[in-house]
Amino acid sequence: VHTLGIDLGGTYARAAVVDPGGRILASAKTALTDRGPEAVVEAIHQAAEGAITSAGSVTIHGCGVGVAGQLGPNGSVIVGPNLGWRNVPFGALLAARLGRKVRVVNDLAAASWGELNAGAGKGVQDLFVVFVGSGVGSSIISAGRFVRGAAGVAGEFGHIKVVPGGRLCGCGERGCLEAYAGGHNLIAQMQEALQGTEPTRLSTLTGNDPHKLTPVVLEEAAEQGDAVARRIYDAAVGHLSLAIANQLTVLNPARLILGGGVLNRTPGMLKRIREGVSAWTNANARAAVSVVVAELGDDSGLIGAGLLATAE
Amino acid sequence: VHTLGIDLGGTYARAAVVDPGGRILASAKTALTDRGPEAVVEAIHQAAEGAITSAGSVTIHGCGVGVAGQLGPNGSVIVGPNLGWRNVPFGALLAARLGRKVRVVNDLAAASWGELNAGAGKGVQDLFVVFVGSGVGSSIISAGRFVRGAAGVAGEFGHIKVVPGGRLCGCGERGCLEAYAGGHNLIAQMQEALQGTEPTRLSTLTGNDPHKLTPVVLEEAAEQGDAVARRIYDAAVGHLSLAIANQLTVLNPARLILGGGVLNRTPGMLKRIREGVSAWTNANARAAVSVVVAELGDDSGLIGAGLLATAE
Repeated sequence: VHTLGIDLGGTYARAAVVDPGGRILASAKTALTDRGPEAVVEAIHQAAEGAITSAGSVTIHGCGVGVAGQLGPNGSVIVGPNLGWRNVPFGALLAARLGRKVRVVNDLAAASWGELNAGAGKGVQDLFVVFVGSGVGSSIISAGRFVRGAAGVAGEFGHIKVVPGGRLCGCGERGCLEAYAGGHNLIAQMQEALQGTEPTRLSTLTGNDPHKLTPVVLEEAAEQGDAVARRIYDAAVGHLSLAIANQLTVLNPARLILGGGVLNRTPGMLKRIREGVSAWTNANARAAVSVVVAELGDDSGLIGAGLLATAE
Repeated sequence: VHTLGIDLGGTYARAAVVDPGGRILASAKTALTDRGPEAVVEAIHQAAEGAITSAGSVTIHGCGVGVAGQLGPNGSVIVGPNLGWRNVPFGALLAARLGRKVRVVNDLAAASWGELNAGAGKGVQDLFVVFVGSGVGSSIISAGRFVRGAAGVAGEFGHIKVVPGGRLCGCGERGCLEAYAGGHNLIAQMQEALQGTEPTRLSTLTGNDPHKLTPVVLEEAAEQGDAVARRIYDAAVGHLSLAIANQLTVLNPARLILGGGVLNRTPGMLKRIREGVSAWTNANARAAVSVVVAELGDDSGLIGAGLLATAE
């Protein structure tokens, strides 16, 4: 039984034909030149056709699609920040265009499901997954099941408060973990620092081009001892480490999986988080957990969406 | 089908005959004059006989007992701080003395199960329960099931770190929530403050008798504006509120139940925690949760232990 897994990002729609073991038989991607719902659905359709054609003669039984944002009933997207969407009946539009049933899931849930079933979480029943990409998110799996919460919004780890009254977050609240540690906010903090008068290697490393500011540049400057970069970097690492450690103490998972676009590219940050988590997790929970990095890289969401298409 | 529920505290053993609806038919308690395992088992036996005798002609199908501490396999107690126990084969000793099978559970799990099935959590599937008594603990129920964790130590909310490197906690680690907000530590902080030179109403309110320092006295002094009391009280309330709010954001329960010996007696603290939780919980999770106080008071553990005797 093969399924179609789709990962809808902010710049590309990716599609893959996935087998029940979570292997990708074929994949394709299409750039999003227009972020309007119809254009995005058309791009997904092209990527899907490309993946199915590349896979040769397989029958597709179900389609799952992972989307960043807050989802409503029947696959609707209430808020899709990467695409600027509000209240889009995405599931219905996509099902009509593809001519098949579609299951819409949160992108982090898809990526976590992929890692759980085909990646770093295989064989584990109790899992905490943290992704640090442009945002910060998490999934909790207890006794093999997702902890979904009463309204389906469990795992909003990026929006716990680490500095009450602190930096304004994209969610409209202040002091969220994501406002200090998400990739988008790391870049925003560097841009703000460059407006200031304090000299910083961030200017020389980027030739004063704010578009070249990335979490990788931040790590480089911080490791070179740049004071401005260190403040931003140390705050991000400190808040992330303590918050993750506290969740391990409360949830007592067998495995912590760390992934996402920022952590995949910043080995120094990953190392510091491992140290902080080890220092601050309560002894019993610490003894039970192994800390691993996500194995499927950028494919976790594609694979997870494909596997979720036919799950329970 | 009636069961026997037992709540083993630090000063009393209590026993009750409980019906399947969580009603107490009869109960009895026996003071613990000696905390050695044999003496405690004997006191439980007396309380149990008293409860069964008071209940009249009922047949008992199973016995559950709630104990504070870290439990091992087969009802053993690895660490029982209230009783000074280490590695006591408690379940086996008690089963032999009572002549019946015994299920040993954590006291907070028992209390939470009682509230879930017969108290403030009735009808709810997703629940976060926080008890502030001499210590601080929690239980997580997701889709009607306990989140137990890989090693059965999930819910160790009292030992998350709120001040890294801060006050030494009874668990041997520093900066735990319990070290600032647990009843035992509230009293310890007041005693430490009385050793200092700063004048405080805590001395006049207690006639300089450190044995009269209680969380109720702390609240009274803080509400009268005493600076020493306010520092301790505000730190406890602030750390509790923020930590609870962040768990609500991550877990997205339908109900938060607040209980325990300290919160049951400090209405001001309860009010301030409600305010902090409302201010700091992420909007989606906040919209989904109702905050209630535990309904069963000191009986929640007895009732929960009785109900757990025959549960799954």
